[in-house]
This record gives sequence, structure tokens and C-alpha cells, in this order.
Amino acid sequence: MNIPQVSVPRVVIIGGGFAGINLAKALGNKPVQVVLIDKRNYHTFQPLLYQVSSAGLEPDSIAYPLRKIIKRYKNMYFRMTKVRSIDADANELHTDIGVISFDYLVIATGTKTNYFGNKAIETYSMPMKKVPQALNIRSLILQNFEQAAITEDIATRKALLNFVIVGGGPTGVELAGAIAELKNHILPKDYRDLIASDMQIYLLEGSPRVLPSMSEEASKKAARFLTKLGVLVHCNTFVKDYDGKKVTTNLSLELESETLIWAAGVTGDTVKGLKADALLERANRYKVNTYNQVEGYSNIFALGDIALMATEDYPNGHPQVAQPAIQQGQLLGKNILKLIAGKPLKEFKYVDKGSMATVGRNKAVVDLKHFKFGGFFAWFVWMFVHLMALVGFRNRVVVFFNWCYNYINFDKAARLIIRPFNKLKK
Amino acid sequence: MNIPQVSVPRVVIIGGGFAGINLAKALGNKPVQVVLIDKRNYHTFQPLLYQVSSAGLEPDSIAYPLRKIIKRYKNMYFRMTKVRSIDADANELHTDIGVISFDYLVIATGTKTNYFGNKAIETYSMPMKKVPQALNIRSLILQNFEQAAITEDIATRKALLNFVIVGGGPTGVELAGAIAELKNHILPKDYRDLIASDMQIYLLEGSPRVLPSMSEEASKKAARFLTKLGVLVHCNTFVKDYDGKKVTTNLSLELESETLIWAAGVTGDTVKGLKADALLERANRYKVNTYNQVEGYSNIFALGDIALMATEDYPNGHPQVAQPAIQQGQLLGKNILKLIAGKPLKEFKYVDKGSMATVGRNKAVVDLKHFKFGGFFAWFVWMFVHLMALVGFRNRVVVFFNWCYNYINFDKAARLIIRPFNKLKK
Repeated sequence: MNIPQVSVPRVVIIGGGFAGINLAKALGNKPVQVVLIDKRNYHTFQPLLYQVSSAGLEPDSIAYPLRKIIKRYKNMYFRMTKVRSIDADANELHTDIGVISFDYLVIATGTKTNYFGNKAIETYSMPMKKVPQALNIRSLILQNFEQAAITEDIATRKALLNFVIVGGGPTGVELAGAIAELKNHILPKDYRDLIASDMQIYLLEGSPRVLPSMSEEASKKAARFLTKLGVLVHCNTFVKDYDGKKVTTNLSLELESETLIWAAGVTGDTVKGLKADALLERANRYKVNTYNQVEGYSNIFALGDIALMATEDYPNGHPQVAQPAIQQGQLLGKNILKLIAGKPLKEFKYVDKGSMATVGRNKAVVDLKHFKFGGFFAWFVWMFVHLMALVGFRNRVVVFFNWCYNYINFDKAARLIIRPFNKLKK
Repeated sequence: MNIPQVSVPRVVIIGGGFAGINLAKALGNKPVQVVLIDKRNYHTFQPLLYQVSSAGLEPDSIAYPLRKIIKRYKNMYFRMTKVRSIDADANELHTDIGVISFDYLVIATGTKTNYFGNKAIETYSMPMKKVPQALNIRSLILQNFEQAAITEDIATRKALLNFVIVGGGPTGVELAGAIAELKNHILPKDYRDLIASDMQIYLLEGSPRVLPSMSEEASKKAARFLTKLGVLVHCNTFVKDYDGKKVTTNLSLELESETLIWAAGVTGDTVKGLKADALLERANRYKVNTYNQVEGYSNIFALGDIALMATEDYPNGHPQVAQPAIQQGQLLGKNILKLIAGKPLKEFKYVDKGSMATVGRNKAVVDLKHFKFGGFFAWFVWMFVHLMALVGFRNRVVVFFNWCYNYINFDKAARLIIRPFNKLKK
């Protein structure tokens, strides 16, 4: 494995998401050896992934090389590989590149798309959890536009220009808004051979309102913003099936569409090998105590989306968003050092900094603890917070410039079909 | 096909490279209908492709949506499709999306990689003519680094870190320099588990000097710059074979390498259907007269790399670089309008603006007609000229910022393996 054996304990972190990199930073140049493992060589800033899908940003704006994060710390190693299983008794991890031993193991693998067992939807729909998936959506949208421009059959053209987004959480809402902007600002200029009104964006949400995790006020405003942009919002609507051509729902609503974007749910991206008890099957999340220790283990931890820490305020676990992951990562760094030093650990207490979602230019909603607002100012706050949260000065500048450019020019500049997406080959 | 039939003549342009877009612009809002056809939906700024390969730039910096260029002109249509053949008698083009009729046809398809019939090299080497190919090289370089970091066997590690670039023209020289910068500046920081001296970059050139199309002075300077960066330059060296592991040459030189980048030659990307006479087989370029009319045709033209206009100064045709393509495109736009108006055409006269190549930071060579220079000032001129030549204000700013950032930080920021490259699946 080529990682030197040293006298200090080795902490192995699986996953370079928000939890993983914040934990790694907290252990930087401390008396431990850190091995960060990820399938990819970069950290993904998930909250802006939808802007890659909608041709607003290129991947390098929201992805950040993991080695660039850890190079500052002499005690850190990175290995790009897939973890196959954990051998908890032997304190070993089995990976595609061999066995890696650990003293402390931290599972920060996050979530993956949940199709709720529907194979047809898994086959034909477009997920948006990873950068290549976001690029596939970008390619498909633009391919559909090109194909629609040459199609004389009206029904076929409409099916190419019908975009159905399933899931009214922040991802679905933000993506629907961004695709609506493509319809409103790009289509009329770039595709004079198409009629913008032939294009429809549907947002289907199973619960009674969009952004169900936010306040009712935010939901109402977001729905109004979406409608203003021309998005057709359908609440209380479940997708029952999709064969690549037709979307059927629990209601009479049926949609002919070449594109179904699936943002309806996630499930834990678990690793094999831990005791069955450790996992809450329903949610596919590891049960952890307030120190993020996985139930039944003293040296194995889980963080962020994959961890379920049932507390009084959050009996079903914390929301699967960036903030709990970041905060848990930071605290666990300190706690691991305390554990090694034999000092008492500090309990995790989630500080809810509020939540927000953007719908389009000048349109966002923000829920703070004592203050809820929407519109231009919310949109401004949303931008500022996301810019500051991006990893690295360069990415901030590139995103900021792109946003300014896109805003002034009503443009989305990355309208490139670099790798055409082939639905049949999926 | 959905393109309206109008009373003015239709000019169909195949290819949105330098020649195609300059011709299109010259015909913008003129009394012709223009149909631009390309397999891709973007223009590629080829001279900077090597910076995508070496993680310095993302594709959106050097690729530009073709629809964004033509949207300014009301008489223009774009179709993303592959041309299968020309039916010159019927004035029709057969494409993947059906038949497109033309009054005037302009072939501006450029060139593709030439493997000189060697199937093994075609199978195992990495070409760099297109954006996806450049991204494949980027992925492979970074994958090799990751794999080398976990390999204990020294020979295997060295083969992973040996990069062999074949072809000492501007592409090969610039790419070799950029990869050397990865070795000199990125490897020691990002990959502390690797020893930079295990990495070698070989540049193999068949002729007696690198940059054979430039002055001897430029060749000498470039070779010196390359050597300074640690590139091992081998002139008079032809690659005979490559099985994915070992490179054999005409000399005793044999190299164990996982990566062979093939920049050794191009050949015309011709279209089926024209008379055999029209093509000069050796070069795979269409013989054209001084008005770019293809031999034997009055309404079919060829431009740029694919055209061979034998003149007194250039008996073997103009160099296959951007300038002749741009100048021919601009002139042909005027000539087509003259042809329609029954006015006499203007002969093409190439204005050689000089040539240049960059090797690395502060290192470039420039050949002007009466003045040749190299070093920092040449590098500055190279950057300025390339920035200004980029299409679109946005791309200029993004590239400029990235260059400044990379220069100050000795960094290349797009070190992302977005789509892992699988050599076996190629």
C-alpha cells in the first residue's frame, strides 16, 4: 500500500465529502496518520451540481482535487480506490488496491440515489448525485434541443422538450428553475427554429408542498417563483413508472417525455462488513452515538449523511445536508485526538444555521431561526453563502465571474455536448 | 430538415473550425441562407487543447457553442450531424439527419489524427485532436499518478510515470512542456509518496529538429527550453510500434511506457462523393484553385487544412494551421457574394503572420518574417495573441484568470479525473 508504518495511530477516512475533508483538516499535522480514501480524486461541492447540469458552470468550478486539500499536511495520505468491505475484528479495510489497516475508521461515504426499487426508473431516468451524472444531464438537454430542431413531428418534438424533474427538494427546485432559465433566455436566441412554448418543465413532488424540509412560507414563495418562471409544479404527485417515453403518476397526470431527472430521494452508500445492528435499515444509515461512534464499535465512526444520530431535537437524525456533515467532521477531529489522549469526549450538538434554496435570478428563499425571507435579498445571501462555502480561492473567483457573466448576459456559457449521452447504452 | 426554403441561394458549410466560422461570419446577414453543419455543437480552439490535456484549463475555456456564434445572424442555421456523402450532381448532402440541398457547398472539415496505417499505435496511443481526447489524456495522466503511488514494483511505477510524446511539432512541444510542469511543480507537492525523478517525459521527433516548420533558431531554443524543463528530446527518431507497454523505435531506443501520446501527424477528414481527381491522395486534401474552388466543381469549395492550394510560394499547399483557414474563410465569404452577383472573384493571397510555440512558463519562441525571438517576451506575445484569438469575451477572461492563477501558484487546477479513462475499452 506504500503508506509508511508510523508510531502514531492511523485514522482512515472513507469519503472526501463535506464530512471527510473537514475531519481531515481537523487532524492536519496532529499526532495521527491520516489516510483519506475516495473513489474519485476530487471533492464535489454538491449544492452547485445543478449548475453543471444546466450549463452554467464547468466541473472544475465545483470540484476540487483532494490531494490539493491534503498536501498542506505532512501526516496525510490519499488513496483513490473503492472500499469493498470492513474487517472490524482485524481493524482492516479491504479495497480494490489491497488491504489498509486502521486504528480508527471513519465512514463518511454519504448517500447515493434511491430509486425505491423501481428498475425501470433506474434504467431510464437521469440521477444527479455525481459530476459525470450532471454532465450527462447537460449533454442530454442540449442533445434534445438539437434533435427537436430537426424534428417535424410535433408530438416527438414536445416529448424532446418536456423535462420532468421528480423531487421538490432543494435539488429539484433549483434544477427546475435553472432549466426554466434555459427555456426563457437561451432557447429563443440560440434556437430560433424552436418555439419556446413547446418546451415544458414539470416538477413533481410527492408531499403537499415543494421544499418540504423548509418553512411553509418558503415553500409558498418557491412555488410562486417557479410558476413565474414557467415551471409546472405538481404536488402530491408520485411517479409510478417511466419507460423512457412516458411518465405515469399516482394521479391522472401522464407525461410524454424523453427526459426524467430523478431527484426524489437518496439512500446511504453503506460499506459491507459491520454488524447488522449497526445499520438502521429503513434509512440505510449507521446508528451512531453523540460522539459519532457506530453502535457496537469503539474505534469506528460514521459522519454526515450516512450517520443517524437520534437526539431529542432530531429523533430521526439530522438533515442530510452539508452543515451537520461539516460540524460533525470538525468535532470528530477533536474527539479522536481526545480519545487518543485519554481525555473525555465532547458531545455533538448541531447548530442549525438555517436553510435556503434558489429558484432563479433574483429569486431565492431563506429560512433562519427567527427570520424568513425571500426574493432578491435572499438570492443575494444564497450566492454569498455558497461562494464562501466553495473550497479554494480559485473556484470562488471562477464561479463568481461565471455568475456575473451569466447574470448580465442572461446566458449559460457551458452549452457544450462534450460527451454525447446515449440513453440506450446507460 | 426544417430549414425554410427561401429565394436566396443556400450556402452549406461543413465544419465549425476556424475556416467555417470565419466564412459564416463573413456571410452574416448577407443575401444568402447559411447552414452550418458540425458533428459537435461547439467550435474548438485547437491551439490550447494541450492545456486541457495537462489540467490547466477546462473545456469550456477553449470550446465555444456554435449556436452562440450564429445567433447574431438572422440568415443562419445550425445542424449538429455527421455528413455521410456529397451528391454533387444533385447538389445534395446526405447526413445522419437526412438530405440537405445546397447551392454552394463549402468543405471545411479539417484533419484527423494520422496513424500512418499502424493499427497497434491506433489502438494503444492517445490522440489529441478533440476535446474528449484531451480529457482522456488528462484522466490518464492523473490515473497513472494515482496508480504509481500505490505500486511497490519500481519498473511498473516507472512505466506509469514515463510519458512518451510522438511528434515534435507545436502540439508535441507544448504538451511535453506542460507535462514537464506537472512533474516539476505538481508531483512534488501533491504526490509526496512519489519521487519526481521517477517520472520522465520523452519527446520523439522524426526529423532532425523539433518544430521543423519553424526557423532553425526557434528549433534550437525550443529544444534548449525543453531540456531545461527535463524533457528528453530525441530527434531523427520514429516510433515503429507500441503494444500498450513498450515503445520501439528505428533506433536502439526502447521505452517502457503506459502512455504514448500521438501527435505525429494528421490527414484530411474527407467526405465521400467527390470525383477522385479532386483529392490529392498523398495528403488527403482537396485540390483547390486560388478561389478555393475544388478541382472540377464550380459551386463546391474547400477551406483550410482540408484544402490544398498549390501556389508559387506554397507548392505543397499552405501550412495546416489556423491562419490560412481564417484568411481563406474570410475571403471566400466575399467571393461567394461576388459569384452570386456575377462579379469577378478575388484571388487568395496568404499573409504569413508568423508562427510561434510555447514550451512553458516564460519560455516560448516566435518567428516573424524579419524578426525571430524567444524567452520571456516571446512567451508574453504568445499569451497575448492566443488570448485575443479566443472566441468570446467570457472565454478570454476565464483563460486569462486561469493563466494568472496557475502562473502565480505554479499550479494546474483542473486535476480532476471526471471520467476515468479505460485503455482496454478504447
